[in-house]
Amino acid sequence: MQALRLTGRDLKIEDVPLPGAAHEALVRVRMSGICNTDLEIVRGYAGFRGTLGHEFVGTVEKADDRPEIVGKRVVGEINAGCGECSLCVIGDSRHCPERTVLGIVGRDGAHAEFLALPSRNLYEVPESVNDDAAVFTEPLAAAYGITERVDISPETLVVVIGDGKLGLLCAMALKLKTEDVSIIGRHRSKLSIAENVGIKAFLADEGFKVGRRFDVVVDATGSESGMLLAVDLVRPLGSIVLKSTFHGAPAWPASRIVIDEISVVGSRCGRFEPALRLLEDKKIDPTPLISDECALEDGVEAFDRAKEKGVLKVLLRMDQ
Amino acid sequence: MQALRLTGRDLKIEDVPLPGAAHEALVRVRMSGICNTDLEIVRGYAGFRGTLGHEFVGTVEKADDRPEIVGKRVVGEINAGCGECSLCVIGDSRHCPERTVLGIVGRDGAHAEFLALPSRNLYEVPESVNDDAAVFTEPLAAAYGITERVDISPETLVVVIGDGKLGLLCAMALKLKTEDVSIIGRHRSKLSIAENVGIKAFLADEGFKVGRRFDVVVDATGSESGMLLAVDLVRPLGSIVLKSTFHGAPAWPASRIVIDEISVVGSRCGRFEPALRLLEDKKIDPTPLISDECALEDGVEAFDRAKEKGVLKVLLRMDQ
Repeated sequence: MQALRLTGRDLKIEDVPLPGAAHEALVRVRMSGICNTDLEIVRGYAGFRGTLGHEFVGTVEKADDRPEIVGKRVVGEINAGCGECSLCVIGDSRHCPERTVLGIVGRDGAHAEFLALPSRNLYEVPESVNDDAAVFTEPLAAAYGITERVDISPETLVVVIGDGKLGLLCAMALKLKTEDVSIIGRHRSKLSIAENVGIKAFLADEGFKVGRRFDVVVDATGSESGMLLAVDLVRPLGSIVLKSTFHGAPAWPASRIVIDEISVVGSRCGRFEPALRLLEDKKIDPTPLISDECALEDGVEAFDRAKEKGVLKVLLRMDQ
Repeated sequence: MQALRLTGRDLKIEDVPLPGAAHEALVRVRMSGICNTDLEIVRGYAGFRGTLGHEFVGTVEKADDRPEIVGKRVVGEINAGCGECSLCVIGDSRHCPERTVLGIVGRDGAHAEFLALPSRNLYEVPESVNDDAAVFTEPLAAAYGITERVDISPETLVVVIGDGKLGLLCAMALKLKTEDVSIIGRHRSKLSIAENVGIKAFLADEGFKVGRRFDVVVDATGSESGMLLAVDLVRPLGSIVLKSTFHGAPAWPASRIVIDEISVVGSRCGRFEPALRLLEDKKIDPTPLISDECALEDGVEAFDRAKEKGVLKVLLRMDQ
């Protein structure tokens, strides 16, 4: 099969055998999404080599231990746990110490004609959710997962720093929980997507009034400057959510965390069920985030496109 | 009156007028404790100049708006709020943006014959709690305050990094909430105080097995190395409590906070009522932490003593 693979430092389309172990489900990928993590991996983050990609919607070809899902359209939880540790046993493989992660750690990913995952990782997509929306399930789950890490009530004052794909999805997801969500970014076109759903949008360099007034600040930049701005925006006893991985070890004003009793909360993957429900109920429409759609065979060019300033989600569509 | 004051870069005993505004309570100090924050202030932290000290027990001389406490033995909440903002109105001045802080921010402190505080800041000391114990109310409140920032149940696995005064008090306070508390430090004599109350003690350089297994890690070192060790000890989805203020801006492995969904929780001042109750009920005996007791007039030498390696709490006793 064809797959978009990182080998050494080169990203290229290669012809490789079907992936996966005998006991795993095999999924024919319909569509995959290029995430910033993919771009980071190409730059050397996480040391991964193999088929990239962890956002997808596909059709189950084979699932010996869940035959009822064969032929169904599915999305998939990207963490494949050992199935036996205390975390896996309670159904949460996201922090299993032995886990592989689709297209990120020890497991070939979704920018390919086929991918393999344990069948328990797969979630059927409701008919009313089309591929263009379903392919956002993983990042939407990550964004909505913030609500499981910090309390957000209708009165909570929220600001998201960063108007990339993840920042926008976070702002859109949190807007479902509270009236007052702001987003700070550098791109008027991206911010307008947020404004269209009632989020207050601010250009970073245009006199956004910094003040320690927000209950919850989400950093979706993964940068030291984003973290420092977060500390300047959060109120005493408030929470900073770190949503993006960082390069290296940023310096941070730790004394303010202590004196103002701030909570800094890491947030990574979220649960798929609530995200699929949001898409089914049309509570969120992620499709305005789509900048481009390419064929798998043009995957290398699609990655270049995804790196361009002003571009949001680039999707890869596989021949069916 | 006599007071131990920092003027410019010099610490010295000075003769100064009685402190406080007309509407505030006046307290004759019986005993005060030297805290690491005092030592930091002498080194330049927080830019404070004036009478140092924020840990005390004293006798109320004057309290026009609470005459019933005149003559009583009291301890005092160190944050003096504006009394009008939303935080003060709900009775929590600890984060009032206009607050002064006894001996730390804009208000003369406790290493003196008298101090002034709003009368609402004062708490009567039960008769059964002697001065030697009561003078620990403030740091014990800070230590026990951790339990209001993170959930600690009888099964929670806790480790405290740092065997200074605050680290030991944190370990002793958390031991009341969970069976399994460890402390890591550099001084066998200090660690033995923890061992005497059932805390597992480890010398930092003696093969303590580092592993990401603790539910809650308390950093009581305020150092970058303490923070890095905390990250190496906390389990995924666990909490790191930052209990000490830091110098400057330490580098920290932010990506691990994100990937393992760790919470980093600042914790500073605690409530006085629960701390006084712990002392009254003899749940905690802080007096083994006392290294020395000096007269106020020997305050400069007492500070030198408090800086010595291996020394824990140095108290100042005022002539009555």
